[in-house]
Amino acid sequence: MTVTLEQVCEFLKESDDFVILMHGNPDGDTLGCGMALCGALQQLGKRAMVRCPDHIPARFDYMRKAYAEQEFEPRTVIAVDVADPKLLGELRGLGEQTDLCIDHHESNTGYAKRTLLRGDYAAAAELVLEVVDALGAEITVPIANALYTGIATDTGCFRFSNTTPSSHIKAARLIGLGAEITPINYAMFDLKTPGRMRLEQEVLSKIRYYAGGHIAVIYTSLALLESICDIDSDDVGALAALPRQIQGVDIGISIKEKKNGVYKASLRSSERVNVSDIAQGFGGGGHARAAGCSFEGMTEAQAERHIVEACVQALEKEGIV
Amino acid sequence: MTVTLEQVCEFLKESDDFVILMHGNPDGDTLGCGMALCGALQQLGKRAMVRCPDHIPARFDYMRKAYAEQEFEPRTVIAVDVADPKLLGELRGLGEQTDLCIDHHESNTGYAKRTLLRGDYAAAAELVLEVVDALGAEITVPIANALYTGIATDTGCFRFSNTTPSSHIKAARLIGLGAEITPINYAMFDLKTPGRMRLEQEVLSKIRYYAGGHIAVIYTSLALLESICDIDSDDVGALAALPRQIQGVDIGISIKEKKNGVYKASLRSSERVNVSDIAQGFGGGGHARAAGCSFEGMTEAQAERHIVEACVQALEKEGIV
Repeated sequence: MTVTLEQVCEFLKESDDFVILMHGNPDGDTLGCGMALCGALQQLGKRAMVRCPDHIPARFDYMRKAYAEQEFEPRTVIAVDVADPKLLGELRGLGEQTDLCIDHHESNTGYAKRTLLRGDYAAAAELVLEVVDALGAEITVPIANALYTGIATDTGCFRFSNTTPSSHIKAARLIGLGAEITPINYAMFDLKTPGRMRLEQEVLSKIRYYAGGHIAVIYTSLALLESICDIDSDDVGALAALPRQIQGVDIGISIKEKKNGVYKASLRSSERVNVSDIAQGFGGGGHARAAGCSFEGMTEAQAERHIVEACVQALEKEGIV
Repeated sequence: MTVTLEQVCEFLKESDDFVILMHGNPDGDTLGCGMALCGALQQLGKRAMVRCPDHIPARFDYMRKAYAEQEFEPRTVIAVDVADPKLLGELRGLGEQTDLCIDHHESNTGYAKRTLLRGDYAAAAELVLEVVDALGAEITVPIANALYTGIATDTGCFRFSNTTPSSHIKAARLIGLGAEITPINYAMFDLKTPGRMRLEQEVLSKIRYYAGGHIAVIYTSLALLESICDIDSDDVGALAALPRQIQGVDIGISIKEKKNGVYKASLRSSERVNVSDIAQGFGGGGHARAAGCSFEGMTEAQAERHIVEACVQALEKEGIV
């Protein structure tokens, strides 16, 4: 059932003993929402805790100041930024009993008893800010930090096309309330581990261009990943964006070896090409500008030839080459 | 003489035949201010033109849609985002007759007959937006693009510590008026030429760490720059930020060979060290977190040893190593 902001407030005020679920492989938005809402509910005299099925990377630790750790038996289940209980890993069973879901994914499956959804918001944190305000809780500096982090990370620090006037206006308000944007932005957007620096260099040193520079391909082998210390899945995930940043490239391809003979290709494109169509041709999918597919039982060179050929055809179809 | 927004409007309305000066080595802020203000004045039926002493990089070409090219003999001189007529190169003579300067640099020398200054604004474009509004001109899409570019570039896309609630609120307004943030942000913040990619890789492949990883040094030789096509001064300038992005690095140093035996060191630091003091020790200067100095009559290795030794001493003094 879809609910309004007023109904959400009424429900939260008459309930207690909350567990707030955040999705697996957590990002700044789900964590910022969970921790800010937890702190706001505690301010109202409620018991509240957060749970995430996966390890929370240390760079998000500052957000934990938004709430206090409490031990109790939960009676009310909230999910934030969780479009589908499948994203809850080992907490999936709990997720299927969700009493209230606060989310911004149009693809939300409607699994919760009550859903507050704003598909036009860049970040779920924009919506949680409205909930915290409607509850009459104070936006403390740690809560402002948590919500700012959610908005900033989901918009790529206001770079991505999902950024709206609302994202900026809410960021302005949170900065006015004390959000510490200098260390947050440095930690989220500038900082790289020495391992990540080395990883980026290694793959970029072997970048291959096709179709007169309209296609660029990088490759990450398991052997390379094993040879570099202090990298995590975020570091590897971030590689996908690199080839498309090069001037003249319409399709950037990042191929990763998943296990022997299995490769995952991540595609990123300019607005001139639809890579979702290309990925679907190999049983994959995604969005028009960001999609992916897998190849099995072949060498890296063969996987690369398959995906590049399909991309060249797409460029030809659009009259680009 | 310092003037108010109302006095600026009065002056602009009673004057005509404007030349708007933008500073040399132009950035998105001076160009966005100049072109937006030019278009706004033309809307009021005035003649107006923009002038910049240096070449305007092609990636800013979209901002030229904010105004029409007009030929006439200028009678009124405006300078935007120009703190000192020295920054006007060959237009310095004209700059010294500036009737109105609109700027956000605290360091503005007060050279103009009238100065509208807001030192607390991250970008001069924030102030020009207020002027355009006060004039009653329409914020067309190209004017919104130009002003958005000014705000976004001067704040590092809202990442830098100079970003204020006002920066975000004005960005929100410009997006609401149609500013095309997706292509602008891609061109300003993601796009790299293949040459810049190669340059970054080459210098990072030889990065050197000192003081247990608290200091990182990269070096760019003239021979390297000459071996890579399609790089410009922006690409070389951007190198200075790279070493400080590495986790654990408190002082990032970028050494560039200017000519044989002459080296420029650019220093960037965490909030734990003041690199302005270090640079001053070698006759240079700058800010606490970003400073620079030069070395002459020695090898690169000697220059590097000098600056690294001074940095180690600074880290020791702060108790970091």
